[in-house]
Amino acid sequence: MTPSPQVPQEQEHPLDAAAADLGAGGAMAPEQGTAAYRRRMERRQQVQYQRVQARQLEKGLRLVFTGQGKGKTTAGLGLVLRTLGHGERVAVVQFIKGAWTPGEAKALAVFGEQLRWHALGEGFTWNTQDRQRDREMVNRAWRQACVYLPDAAVKLVLLDEINVALKLGYISLEAVLAGLEQRPPLTHVALTGRGAPPGLIAAADLVTEMTMVRHPFREQGVKAQAGIEY
Amino acid sequence: MTPSPQVPQEQEHPLDAAAADLGAGGAMAPEQGTAAYRRRMERRQQVQYQRVQARQLEKGLRLVFTGQGKGKTTAGLGLVLRTLGHGERVAVVQFIKGAWTPGEAKALAVFGEQLRWHALGEGFTWNTQDRQRDREMVNRAWRQACVYLPDAAVKLVLLDEINVALKLGYISLEAVLAGLEQRPPLTHVALTGRGAPPGLIAAADLVTEMTMVRHPFREQGVKAQAGIEY
Repeated sequence: MTPSPQVPQEQEHPLDAAAADLGAGGAMAPEQGTAAYRRRMERRQQVQYQRVQARQLEKGLRLVFTGQGKGKTTAGLGLVLRTLGHGERVAVVQFIKGAWTPGEAKALAVFGEQLRWHALGEGFTWNTQDRQRDREMVNRAWRQACVYLPDAAVKLVLLDEINVALKLGYISLEAVLAGLEQRPPLTHVALTGRGAPPGLIAAADLVTEMTMVRHPFREQGVKAQAGIEY
Repeated sequence: MTPSPQVPQEQEHPLDAAAADLGAGGAMAPEQGTAAYRRRMERRQQVQYQRVQARQLEKGLRLVFTGQGKGKTTAGLGLVLRTLGHGERVAVVQFIKGAWTPGEAKALAVFGEQLRWHALGEGFTWNTQDRQRDREMVNRAWRQACVYLPDAAVKLVLLDEINVALKLGYISLEAVLAGLEQRPPLTHVALTGRGAPPGLIAAADLVTEMTMVRHPFREQGVKAQAGIEY
């Protein structure tokens, strides 16, 4: 049960298998009496404790939030808030649009210098209507990101909508992966936006795809509302 | 092109089809010259404008974040921050675990009375080891939620991990759906946690499933880190 960074990726850890075998509790648990239920939960708790013990490595992570569903930028924003709450410094670089105004901008202003935030995108491709200018803006955003990525004083760098810039061909995957390599060992980086390329997914420590299961309010004629979309 | 709330749900809107037909821009766009590219982007911009015009309904939304991937609670947290930034009041009720301490707790304390937040869960089923106590805690959390849901002064109610409480059978779907009906017309509610039941998904205005695509850092022995997990 000794942890090993050499374990092949994606292989199920024996402790994860043990946890799955033991299952969870709840009102629908099979045990009739409380004693049997408690015994199984005690065993599960032991496995959970071992799981925590087996994972002692600290590491700066590459986190990717992609997919068509809502929640990618907001999940990145949640990480920003969490990190600020621990007293760490955070840098945000927005690549495509100024999606974070005015709601988040106002809210995050209370953190002052603890948060550096650059809204360098000008809008969607149909707003700018100019590929050369789009590319220049993306490169400008990337140069800003490259200031923060090697800075050990910054705990989290959020590259908002950079996946879209990659998908649109305004920046190369090779350049982005090389930039991520410049991070100090304990710096986290989160990359959001639909269309994350396979090479980025392969290089990430965690990838969540936000899948749109239902979105009927669009068909109901509901407009973009404060607090939800901006 | 007149919008209608009577349009059957999930049917593709003609404007969405037009936008898809026109496509996006970017470096890989087919046009050789800038004039043809600009013409297509202008047409797309017109469609986007029509899309905005077609959606004028304001409505309190039921948002569900579910699935096995990371980002459900953090996405809810992003909505909280966005709503606070617009000067609105927010209420958070946590049903299963105190996942938001200490990072978010510290960060959100700056909003004072604008945010009410109740961490009423005691932990996972294997920590409590007591189904009756779990059920009582969930019911206590639900009673607290029912104080906020009908309150027009509260713009967003976040019911964190309530999907897990539903999945574990500690509260009935009927009770939850009835509670959501008590909201004033413009109050949003977000429900997070894996295992959202089909009946909740059917009743929602937006459902995002967070799908875990890659999570190799678990196999690398990486521990839960400040700013990422808590």
